[in-house]
Amino acid sequence: MQHGPLKLKLQLLCGEGTAMGPGKADLLDAIGREGSISAAGRALGMSYRRSWLLVDEMNRCFRAPLVDAVSGGGAGRGARLTEAGRAALTAYRDLEAAAAVAADTDAYRLLVDAMLDAPRPQGAGAGA
Amino acid sequence: MQHGPLKLKLQLLCGEGTAMGPGKADLLDAIGREGSISAAGRALGMSYRRSWLLVDEMNRCFRAPLVDAVSGGGAGRGARLTEAGRAALTAYRDLEAAAAVAADTDAYRLLVDAMLDAPRPQGAGAGA
Repeated sequence: MQHGPLKLKLQLLCGEGTAMGPGKADLLDAIGREGSISAAGRALGMSYRRSWLLVDEMNRCFRAPLVDAVSGGGAGRGARLTEAGRAALTAYRDLEAAAAVAADTDAYRLLVDAMLDAPRPQGAGAGA
Repeated sequence: MQHGPLKLKLQLLCGEGTAMGPGKADLLDAIGREGSISAAGRALGMSYRRSWLLVDEMNRCFRAPLVDAVSGGGAGRGARLTEAGRAALTAYRDLEAAAAVAADTDAYRLLVDAMLDAPRPQGAGAGA
């Protein structure tokens, strides 16, 4: 999540894994929109294997699965967000919004005022 | 920065570079404590080259340099935080603290209650 020059990354850790983070939340959004894990992955420029692994990790990190994948052939595998999936996605977006209040502080304004828009070229350092 | 399972990463982008982030803030802390870039890098398990590059990137991203490196031989190179460096470090820590209010929201509690402490083993999926 980005606010001007401020980039905020929120992750919910689950043992060695990550239950939720920016990539997983975007994937949930895309699954809700696209109706399948493969189409969601494609929409995000992600391999099917990678998107499937992210879904699997999420499902294993929550008490109830977030994505219900309808396996089997025919017209391709479909997938949809469960009620737990929709609730977790909404809560994660709310959490991001809560953290973003950092961009409305004097500390943020002080940093932005002290920064340049782009790095000074190497060798032109101001006393470095 | 971590609060229970919540990991928060704040970066201030500067063109293609990063003016400030968790690693750079820790390095500023260590330079303030150790009095040199090499000792600070060592304390953080970072090569001298890597710590020097981080300092150089910071100095080039701010109007005034954050670290004043006394180059030259003798008893080794010393370095200290400038007034701008101390101000930027304090502001960044304040910014982190402001973002951390996210951990005091219903959204956070909902997510934590829905999560497991560690991922369920592969193959034991609840409907995955």
